[in-house]
Amino acid sequence: MNDTFLKACRGEKVEYTPVWLMRQAGRYMKEYQEVRSTVDFLTLCKTPELAAKVTLQPVDILGVDAAILFSDILIPVEAMGMNLEFHDQKGPVLGEPVRTKAGVDKLIIPDTEDSMSFVLETIKILRRELENKVPLIGFSGAPWTLATYIIEGGSSKNFLNTKKMMYQNPGLFSMLMEKITATIIEYLTAQIKAGAQAVQLFDSWAGILSPFDYEKIIFPYVKKTIKALKKQDVPVIYFVNNCAGLLEIAKKSGADVIGIDWRVDMAKAVKRLGKKVSVQGNLDPCVLFGPREHIEERVQDILGKARTARGHIFNLGHGILPETPVENAIAMVEAVHKFSRI
Amino acid sequence: MNDTFLKACRGEKVEYTPVWLMRQAGRYMKEYQEVRSTVDFLTLCKTPELAAKVTLQPVDILGVDAAILFSDILIPVEAMGMNLEFHDQKGPVLGEPVRTKAGVDKLIIPDTEDSMSFVLETIKILRRELENKVPLIGFSGAPWTLATYIIEGGSSKNFLNTKKMMYQNPGLFSMLMEKITATIIEYLTAQIKAGAQAVQLFDSWAGILSPFDYEKIIFPYVKKTIKALKKQDVPVIYFVNNCAGLLEIAKKSGADVIGIDWRVDMAKAVKRLGKKVSVQGNLDPCVLFGPREHIEERVQDILGKARTARGHIFNLGHGILPETPVENAIAMVEAVHKFSRI
Repeated sequence: MNDTFLKACRGEKVEYTPVWLMRQAGRYMKEYQEVRSTVDFLTLCKTPELAAKVTLQPVDILGVDAAILFSDILIPVEAMGMNLEFHDQKGPVLGEPVRTKAGVDKLIIPDTEDSMSFVLETIKILRRELENKVPLIGFSGAPWTLATYIIEGGSSKNFLNTKKMMYQNPGLFSMLMEKITATIIEYLTAQIKAGAQAVQLFDSWAGILSPFDYEKIIFPYVKKTIKALKKQDVPVIYFVNNCAGLLEIAKKSGADVIGIDWRVDMAKAVKRLGKKVSVQGNLDPCVLFGPREHIEERVQDILGKARTARGHIFNLGHGILPETPVENAIAMVEAVHKFSRI
Repeated sequence: MNDTFLKACRGEKVEYTPVWLMRQAGRYMKEYQEVRSTVDFLTLCKTPELAAKVTLQPVDILGVDAAILFSDILIPVEAMGMNLEFHDQKGPVLGEPVRTKAGVDKLIIPDTEDSMSFVLETIKILRRELENKVPLIGFSGAPWTLATYIIEGGSSKNFLNTKKMMYQNPGLFSMLMEKITATIIEYLTAQIKAGAQAVQLFDSWAGILSPFDYEKIIFPYVKKTIKALKKQDVPVIYFVNNCAGLLEIAKKSGADVIGIDWRVDMAKAVKRLGKKVSVQGNLDPCVLFGPREHIEERVQDILGKARTARGHIFNLGHGILPETPVENAIAMVEAVHKFSRI
């Protein structure tokens, strides 16, 4: 088994730097588009055979060192009781935003076996089909990120409704965060028990917070989630998008790996994160639209800067973009493997 | 004259911390809405008497320590030859995005007296009407930020077209940046000559760049702009939005003041910026939707953290939001004045 990824998560010695790409199963790949043309996005997430199929595509085509479950960070939000739709232009749209006590009360803490068994089924298929070729990563949105979707009812520009609740009604906001946190813990524990060999918490909207609010209001729920997950014996990755102002806080999350976006210098991030966590990242996804020589230069720059980290998993700083040329994603993976070998 | 703002820009001793708010003339104020209801946004920018009128409103109503010219960062882009419209929902829409050599060649380096004399006229009226009560700040978008609008044709999610040009056609991208830089230098120099007592460069989209690209590709144009402006004897403020990954670079800009957004801790920012520049910022605009006691707590937190800075101008970390209660903006200004007095 290629366990380079798991070793790097734990800070163990590796022969080369492992690499995977956030959203590596996706629209930029014609093999994915073929599957997707037969079903809508949410049906794809909920059909284990198809979800497993697209999960496996980048493992073969790109040669990455980990597979990540094909799903969406909002799947548990739907299971909590909100209507979920995906619109091609607007992205996710959730029914009736939750902004009152009655709204929070109505949300349930779902049982994964009951309402999200398709995810567990997908994981089981994947573990069989992967035959231990590479490890399988499970994932969920982090508590704060899911809270923003629940309160805004979708994505947002200023996240004003979410912050309003945070400032105007901190008690209600905590109630909501508690429910979300319990949901995520149950959901990811079930994923691990079904076979996920690592889990990633996506805090896609962490970076819209001041460090003040992040530390006092949000971070306790991150720590609570990760502490519970660490009862299972798999690495936890905490991806903090737009992390440059938050690293000294995030490093205390209890996660094995901090995933970072591209807007922070890798050398500075490694220094600020210290020697107790590994780091994952952080190439700007847009670099994959440039020439191959430039991609290689940037890969080498990041590899060099991450050399003193406890462990490094190469990744993009955000999800791969839909229009990315596949050959450039392959070039990136090859460059990581080539230039990181001792 | 209340020159507290100018003194803080230069790092001179002040009796209290000066404060102004980005977008302090704006929709959140009913007096502004009254004026705006009679004309569209662009006409308001281009009618000196009206632009001067709304510029003065927050000086009286909020009690801020500086006035800022009412205008838009894209005014010089229109003068370069692009069609400019504002749509209530979508924000600015520019005609025909510039992505080819022919497109770049067609852009002109405008003469402010010829095509933007309304700005100079507004400044002259303001200096008369302000009677030196508080200083007047002029402004422009920074080179990179204007480039994104010119290449994308408006705002953007991933700024992919801009980054594509940067990576795929660096020669063409430089040509465009040179033209924009020359435009901004001429435009801000004219504003200063007309009476602006400080100028702010808004790099609203600096924070979408990796530090690698920011330093190598963008920052030379920032330095060039500021170097030229420093021939005039007024403070230059460089506002770097989403700055947390960029401060060590930005501090070398040559600006007197670095404006920072709310996603970085003020104490850390002051430490990273060092003793050669003053700092401006950095309250999350959403805090103004919370209770007064919380606003006061956050003001005190930032004031305390900025105490070791060379100089501090209090501000929001971004423009004030349209729905902000005016009384909370006033409470913020009062809190800054009250808690910063020695």
